[in-house]
Amino acid sequence: MQHVTFPTSRTFDFAAIGRLCIDLNANEINRPMEETMTFTKYVGGSPANIAIGMSRLGQKTAFIGKIANDQMGRFIASYLQREGIDTSSVTVDDTGAVTGLAFTEIKSPSECSILMYRDNVADLLLKPEEVSEELISQAKLLLISGTALAQSPSREAVFQALEYAKKHGTVIAFDLDYRPYTWKSAEETAVYYNLAAEKCDILIGTREEFDQMEMFESNPEHDDRVTATKWFSYSAKIAIIKHGKEGSIAYTKDGSEHRAKSYPAKVIKTFGAGDSYAAGFLYGVMQGWTLEKSMEYGSAAACIVISSHSCSDAMPTTEQVEDYIKRCERGEITAS
Amino acid sequence: MQHVTFPTSRTFDFAAIGRLCIDLNANEINRPMEETMTFTKYVGGSPANIAIGMSRLGQKTAFIGKIANDQMGRFIASYLQREGIDTSSVTVDDTGAVTGLAFTEIKSPSECSILMYRDNVADLLLKPEEVSEELISQAKLLLISGTALAQSPSREAVFQALEYAKKHGTVIAFDLDYRPYTWKSAEETAVYYNLAAEKCDILIGTREEFDQMEMFESNPEHDDRVTATKWFSYSAKIAIIKHGKEGSIAYTKDGSEHRAKSYPAKVIKTFGAGDSYAAGFLYGVMQGWTLEKSMEYGSAAACIVISSHSCSDAMPTTEQVEDYIKRCERGEITAS
Amino acid sequence: MQHVTFPTSRTFDFAAIGRLCIDLNANEINRPMEETMTFTKYVGGSPANIAIGMSRLGQKTAFIGKIANDQMGRFIASYLQREGIDTSSVTVDDTGAVTGLAFTEIKSPSECSILMYRDNVADLLLKPEEVSEELISQAKLLLISGTALAQSPSREAVFQALEYAKKHGTVIAFDLDYRPYTWKSAEETAVYYNLAAEKCDILIGTREEFDQMEMFESNPEHDDRVTATKWFSYSAKIAIIKHGKEGSIAYTKDGSEHRAKSYPAKVIKTFGAGDSYAAGFLYGVMQGWTLEKSMEYGSAAACIVISSHSCSDAMPTTEQVEDYIKRCERGEITAS
Amino acid sequence: MQHVTFPTSRTFDFAAIGRLCIDLNANEINRPMEETMTFTKYVGGSPANIAIGMSRLGQKTAFIGKIANDQMGRFIASYLQREGIDTSSVTVDDTGAVTGLAFTEIKSPSECSILMYRDNVADLLLKPEEVSEELISQAKLLLISGTALAQSPSREAVFQALEYAKKHGTVIAFDLDYRPYTWKSAEETAVYYNLAAEKCDILIGTREEFDQMEMFESNPEHDDRVTATKWFSYSAKIAIIKHGKEGSIAYTKDGSEHRAKSYPAKVIKTFGAGDSYAAGFLYGVMQGWTLEKSMEYGSAAACIVISSHSCSDAMPTTEQVEDYIKRCERGEITAS
Repeated sequence: MQHVTFPTSRTFDFAAIGRLCIDLNANEINRPMEETMTFTKYVGGSPANIAIGMSRLGQKTAFIGKIANDQMGRFIASYLQREGIDTSSVTVDDTGAVTGLAFTEIKSPSECSILMYRDNVADLLLKPEEVSEELISQAKLLLISGTALAQSPSREAVFQALEYAKKHGTVIAFDLDYRPYTWKSAEETAVYYNLAAEKCDILIGTREEFDQMEMFESNPEHDDRVTATKWFSYSAKIAIIKHGKEGSIAYTKDGSEHRAKSYPAKVIKTFGAGDSYAAGFLYGVMQGWTLEKSMEYGSAAACIVISSHSCSDAMPTTEQVEDYIKRCERGEITAS
Repeated sequence: MQHVTFPTSRTFDFAAIGRLCIDLNANEINRPMEETMTFTKYVGGSPANIAIGMSRLGQKTAFIGKIANDQMGRFIASYLQREGIDTSSVTVDDTGAVTGLAFTEIKSPSECSILMYRDNVADLLLKPEEVSEELISQAKLLLISGTALAQSPSREAVFQALEYAKKHGTVIAFDLDYRPYTWKSAEETAVYYNLAAEKCDILIGTREEFDQMEMFESNPEHDDRVTATKWFSYSAKIAIIKHGKEGSIAYTKDGSEHRAKSYPAKVIKTFGAGDSYAAGFLYGVMQGWTLEKSMEYGSAAACIVISSHSCSDAMPTTEQVEDYIKRCERGEITAS
Repeated sequence: MQHVTFPTSRTFDFAAIGRLCIDLNANEINRPMEETMTFTKYVGGSPANIAIGMSRLGQKTAFIGKIANDQMGRFIASYLQREGIDTSSVTVDDTGAVTGLAFTEIKSPSECSILMYRDNVADLLLKPEEVSEELISQAKLLLISGTALAQSPSREAVFQALEYAKKHGTVIAFDLDYRPYTWKSAEETAVYYNLAAEKCDILIGTREEFDQMEMFESNPEHDDRVTATKWFSYSAKIAIIKHGKEGSIAYTKDGSEHRAKSYPAKVIKTFGAGDSYAAGFLYGVMQGWTLEKSMEYGSAAACIVISSHSCSDAMPTTEQVEDYIKRCERGEITAS
Repeated sequence: MQHVTFPTSRTFDFAAIGRLCIDLNANEINRPMEETMTFTKYVGGSPANIAIGMSRLGQKTAFIGKIANDQMGRFIASYLQREGIDTSSVTVDDTGAVTGLAFTEIKSPSECSILMYRDNVADLLLKPEEVSEELISQAKLLLISGTALAQSPSREAVFQALEYAKKHGTVIAFDLDYRPYTWKSAEETAVYYNLAAEKCDILIGTREEFDQMEMFESNPEHDDRVTATKWFSYSAKIAIIKHGKEGSIAYTKDGSEHRAKSYPAKVIKTFGAGDSYAAGFLYGVMQGWTLEKSMEYGSAAACIVISSHSCSDAMPTTEQVEDYIKRCERGEITAS
């Protein structure tokens, strides 16, 4: 059964809007960052990672965002272009803003943290009048990410993008991607997450992220079905609630729920798991696969990324995902 | 025909959320403000005026807002209380914010302007968590006003109030009340006005205010019917578009339009016309009157206010409105 | 003995830099402001009051400051011009700043308070490049006021004015005029007050204001002589420490101290006492009078102002001051 | 001749106040930063580099500053401690500020630039009340750096440090270190640089930095002697004006000027030249050497740093400086 129907005859399979930043990944790992002396630079930011993932999976992809007018910004633009992503809607800041940074600390595969630089960053300066209605009308699927809602004018740019997507029948996926750094309060977060979620067809988030959205509501048991059902009375057709190692559950508007098996991995770090999962899952849904198969595909893509040093650079191709699944099925990969 | 159905068995007929401020009206008028030496103090702010108007018309009324912890704030609270308005949801700022001010300049009955003090004002500091779900669930009608959307956290407080009103079936009226002072850009304004308007049952604004909301859209002829029809696909049942002296037109979801005659007045100034019109009109709709009769009632209330020195203090009772209409019908009042 | 020598052959006797604002004085007094319904508008701000006072006393006076581009700003400029004050160095803000306001509350002659509006005010936006070196080089005496040090860029404008005054031998008087509203911290205040005071010839302040400046120092007994002596090792020649009703003491660089008798007054309110005292005192010093006589002249000027409803408007002429002194000497005026 | 006399019997030879940050130096050099993929982390910031340099030269050194409460901040503190620098006056921010960053780009030995992250940085949050009078009273020499004057409250902390140094007879050196990033305007910069320079014994800056300070003055020929002479009427005894490759000139209060020969170097990058020069020069002055010998010592120290990949890490010991000078004298080192 098709839970979501995508428009056809469009220039782009996929467009993402939001954060473009730089990851500075610790080269010497399994220690506190105080003792890390060198860092390697990668393109980062959840929607950037997902867009790179979708492009690697063969989808015609575009990005809507803003970069700093500096070396970091130019690196991001040229990386996206090399990946075959359309950057005609990636504008360049003219106010002296900087590129957001994320220094990663990997103390152990399960103790990972991030040191963020999010003051005066270019990506949050995207304006609603810089969002291209034409591009959104030419995409089958638009992905928005919660971090872009954190501040004005990027917040208004996302709402404007949602308006265009609704007007033109572009399917909307919302990766909650809640990062407390740039938000002023939990209440502010809840208000805008809810306003955005009302307009989206596919919601993807962790249990904790959905809890954040429900702070003004009564779901004291944090019941997944209560959470998902609310959104089906608005625009949603699929709501995926992620429970970390316990796996994810996809709820659908017809009242059913879907679970998929996961794969083993030799984990280096947990960063990027969600982004590669989202890319793999959305790819599957766009191919018309069952939710179970799509979720397994996302899961395999995530395993590949968490077994690698980077996020964006490690996003797999279809060949790599399929190979990983086969190797798991042959028992060649076991958990670390 | 009833265009809007109100819930019954509720504690309050009417609740308003938003701006509470002080008007300082020129005592010596028909001159530039440079030459005005004394000013008289009144409670002001569009939703405050409408609430006072509704209370004078006999409606059980409550206010949701925030006042400064100073003499001006205390004056506002005690004035509302003397008018019989419930202020249990009027909170007191604890950050050192001030009370918004509006100095009025009346050069002539048709040349009126306002000098606003809107920096660091208490009313824009109302937080979403200070909005009482209980109070909104106990009101038949909630009025929101556009100025409260201009800044955080008041903006989020209004969206939270809308969420509660939708949840509990409280009818929502939106007085656009667009004041450019506190907004950062026209685009920001358009985005939030649209997000709010989607959730409202009754929209009231001038042609210019609706134009502001439509800046991202294609209504090059500024066609009233195009404007109104958009909102009927969301929550709206009635949209009133005001054209100043040419009168107002009420569009309804059934596709009909309604016009009403207006009354003559000896105009002192134009301030407060919109607020008294809104109070009179909403009163009529709540009584189950036709839109034409409700609009005429609003029109008469407006005439009384523009013939007076103040806004809030001049809001009429039902006796005063009815008397004004009768005197007009008897030809006792002619235009100035 | 002459404690300070003024340059001769200059266009202006007196120039002041700093705050220009509006006082809104309660018309109905001896009650809390909540119950005051009308207010009268006057030019206000300590340096503005002193400049008006000096001009009324016959001194050729100029002002360096910034006004809002609105009706309040234009009222201030025209009032100063009518008083014969040169406003060629009063610039007009172009950023949308407002005019500072001070609502006065007079509960009783001894219980007076002020409700200030100091957010986004034009006077604090005076820039160093807007300070005229030419004008300062053509003034005998420059008065600076502490409030202008509270924020950038006005703070830098005052330091630039001090630089020009030192360069051209213009005598500098510093009226401490400490108003906590616009300062971020007591420590910040102390740092800039001290940097400015080092460069000044005449210091005038209350004991509490000098205490504020000494917060990083050791004067646990709040000893006036310790306070004054510090500044004589920098530029100061005279330091006046005011003790309210107990009178003022002038310390001089030669180690002597000077006290003067005060006059009775029928007090309406205490506002403006310090400003009129400063004008009268500085006028006396510029005439070459003894400090005692200058202080008495300041004291009489203060009595006239506190017996009136306004500050700026009540600043006396030499005839009025001399008449007041004579009437006191004849026993015609007794304390209220 | 001794141009400056240092106090004796003090715990510390040297104390510095101001910026503590992180340098992220490109590992792959001689290319634009867009193509640099890995960066190495070092402690940075002009006063930090000078303090590390002084400690390496055997001086008992302390630092007054503020670090972020994160991994970068802790790395800085532990690095300073390992270098033997007293960090009892290095406080930890509690507001969520970050550590300033400087990414270096080395396109060629003569084309070096820096990408700065200076928003919301901890070092600019040092408060005047966090400056230890005790520590400054126990230091022979206090170094201030211009970047710490760029914003409040760090600006006030530096002025408070100057006040303590004057009070206790601690010699003050001012490394102008002008970085436009964090300053609001050139006029603001000039005002505070001048206020600080008035109080300093030794001034060190480039011709361009002194030009910046003189923007309100008349030195149209940018004459070094005019520049230096101004400060000798305040507190200065030595003013060093640096002319890049053309060498530096030291002016002294007695009217003489001093030049020193420079040394050849195989330059990797120019970063850190000024800081190592300052450390070497101040070390020499504190040893009672002639200005010429002190300047040559500074010059040799600078050569060592610009021949290395880092700044702080490359600061030389006395053995290294002396060895470098000897090798130059033997002709073993020639310019790159």
